Amino acid sequence: MIKHTEHPDLEKKYNAIGTPFLYLDKQKFLSNLAQMRSHMSKLGTPLRPHFKTVKSLDALPYLIDSIEDPITVSTLEEAEQLASYGCKDILYAVGISKEKLLRVELLLKRGMSIVVLLDSMEQVDFVNAYCQERGCVISCLIEIDCDGHRGGVSADSEALIAMAKSLGKGLGNFKGVMLHAGESYHCKSREALNQSASNEVATAQLAAKRLESVGIYCEIVSVGSTPTACSYTNTSGITEVRAGVYSLFDLVMHRLGVCTLNDIAISVVSSVIGHNKSRGQIFVDAGWMALSLDKGHDEQCYGVVLQPNGQESQILKVVQVNQEHGILEAASGSEIDFECFPIGSRVHIVPNHACSTSAMHSKYYVFDLVEGQIEQWQRVSGW
Amino acid sequence: MIKHTEHPDLEKKYNAIGTPFLYLDKQKFLSNLAQMRSHMSKLGTPLRPHFKTVKSLDALPYLIDSIEDPITVSTLEEAEQLASYGCKDILYAVGISKEKLLRVELLLKRGMSIVVLLDSMEQVDFVNAYCQERGCVISCLIEIDCDGHRGGVSADSEALIAMAKSLGKGLGNFKGVMLHAGESYHCKSREALNQSASNEVATAQLAAKRLESVGIYCEIVSVGSTPTACSYTNTSGITEVRAGVYSLFDLVMHRLGVCTLNDIAISVVSSVIGHNKSRGQIFVDAGWMALSLDKGHDEQCYGVVLQPNGQESQILKVVQVNQEHGILEAASGSEIDFECFPIGSRVHIVPNHACSTSAMHSKYYVFDLVEGQIEQWQRVSGW
Repeated sequence: MIKHTEHPDLEKKYNAIGTPFLYLDKQKFLSNLAQMRSHMSKLGTPLRPHFKTVKSLDALPYLIDSIEDPITVSTLEEAEQLASYGCKDILYAVGISKEKLLRVELLLKRGMSIVVLLDSMEQVDFVNAYCQERGCVISCLIEIDCDGHRGGVSADSEALIAMAKSLGKGLGNFKGVMLHAGESYHCKSREALNQSASNEVATAQLAAKRLESVGIYCEIVSVGSTPTACSYTNTSGITEVRAGVYSLFDLVMHRLGVCTLNDIAISVVSSVIGHNKSRGQIFVDAGWMALSLDKGHDEQCYGVVLQPNGQESQILKVVQVNQEHGILEAASGSEIDFECFPIGSRVHIVPNHACSTSAMHSKYYVFDLVEGQIEQWQRVSGW
Repeated sequence: MIKHTEHPDLEKKYNAIGTPFLYLDKQKFLSNLAQMRSHMSKLGTPLRPHFKTVKSLDALPYLIDSIEDPITVSTLEEAEQLASYGCKDILYAVGISKEKLLRVELLLKRGMSIVVLLDSMEQVDFVNAYCQERGCVISCLIEIDCDGHRGGVSADSEALIAMAKSLGKGLGNFKGVMLHAGESYHCKSREALNQSASNEVATAQLAAKRLESVGIYCEIVSVGSTPTACSYTNTSGITEVRAGVYSLFDLVMHRLGVCTLNDIAISVVSSVIGHNKSRGQIFVDAGWMALSLDKGHDEQCYGVVLQPNGQESQILKVVQVNQEHGILEAASGSEIDFECFPIGSRVHIVPNHACSTSAMHSKYYVFDLVEGQIEQWQRVSGW
């Protein structure tokens, strides 16, 4: 339970919010943003923040400096809301389907520069056909697979060249390549993570070079994931880096070593509703509806409660969830001090994965412990 | 892909809805409701449907016959929305916390009969104290643990008697007992399920009998879960049965043997956005944001796509999900016929767990294949 001791008024407001709710520590959030900006600035590569994590227009002024700045989205709903806000430069980073092209065209007509993603000749063909039929130009990135974790073509494939050429001939406009090192989330060591980051960059460089060798220029060479973004040492030839989770951070990022526990800016505030002393369990009113079912890298944990001293060795783990119930147990080898968690008291559950836990909530309760203020930031939802 | 062949207009509307979206087959939904009603009617025990699964006021007229009918909720937000609709008889089936009592009192003042749940003397004490201070009467059920899966006191415990007595002395009003056979979701055989159902009923009967022996009458003896509700053969002494998933059904219920695949009324409609023929994978635009991360009883599956013939032996499984991507592979031993799933085509992903998959969506697209009509049913969200 966080005590807002410096600000009694804030503590009162905090206690008046019904549990469970999503708590965002604004100063941590701002610090995470500043840290990534500083890192990117040293690398000399622009950041294209991924909106899919925070997914709130209220947070946008902190994520980007100006509405001209580039941003990444995971849904057209996000793109449309950002367009209404005035944003100009969007990358829609999920493979395009034919039925979504009309909405892309409407965004273009609103003056937004939106780039779509594809990795198959079928997609190239229907984008070209759509542009031909409608008399519009849709800019495309080709997804390159760097580690076998999602879609994408090989950087050394003939398909890459053929697709880029075909886009050039049609009205689909080839803009460059995009990579996402999905493997980075599963790295078990700092070395593996550095290797994943280098591999992502090297694969991007290879793809761009091969295209260049046949006279096709990549205006965009886009790489990224929070773990690799935190790990690049050289981004030569890369035009932009995408990352989303870095703004909030979570237990998965902590276990990868790219943030400290103290950097994690969000938690789910929950009330203790029961004790089972014989089984060593505490029941809280946050189940999967508030936490999500994301177990991150720990198959027995839906989030953790840090003890007041913040030591991980004394954490409680959410070991089981129902829709609106969570069950906490002490981390192995330790016992729960039930007096620290009386029925009716509150706990802050730190999530495994910021994106999936935040997605269970319609808004953030944003606490600024320096300014002593509280805000509500609404989240964008749907597709 | 469902073909609405009888209704070309419906097919057109279906194709105009952007993927991913939540599809509800209204006739299957109605049939599931009718089946449970008939079963309960034979048992002679009233049903108190759990609103937490469908969670839509638009669906309510089908779930209950009249606003006087009993209903179960998992959040106070549900209760408040049901109160606005005019419902009169609510059981809030999650352990009460002190901070929620004001909202309960406000519901009582609106003329609703709302019953709360508790399982500790601490909760009895703060409910009594609240009622004393505010001059109100809050009706309570005591949760009985029948299989060690969640909260609750033992049916044979002294705590049960002490809590019921203490509620009787204070202004907290003792109404009866409530049980939920959490174990039933994990049963591996029909026998185990029948055993779980009998145990739930027998434990409830024991609790009520023990209370009666000390002169405390249980007006409500509430049991339920969809698996046990489908399995009761005798509900003597039981005043009501709670169930939620039965209205939609899902793969977990199918694997438990309480529904057929054809009974499952919901699916997530998704577009094929890529093929990886060498890995035998299909990429779709439904990730965990549309499907949830619920793996049900299958650690390698976030939902299945039934082949047009509906045979489970030819299903595709969603073996991996990112935020907005899903990866399908053929069930073991078979190969994907990629020509059946061209890029741009649609698949219906049947969920492991109706509650958690539906919770990822703000609304249902409800298709009535008999009437040839489509509706949108909004879901209640938040707490």
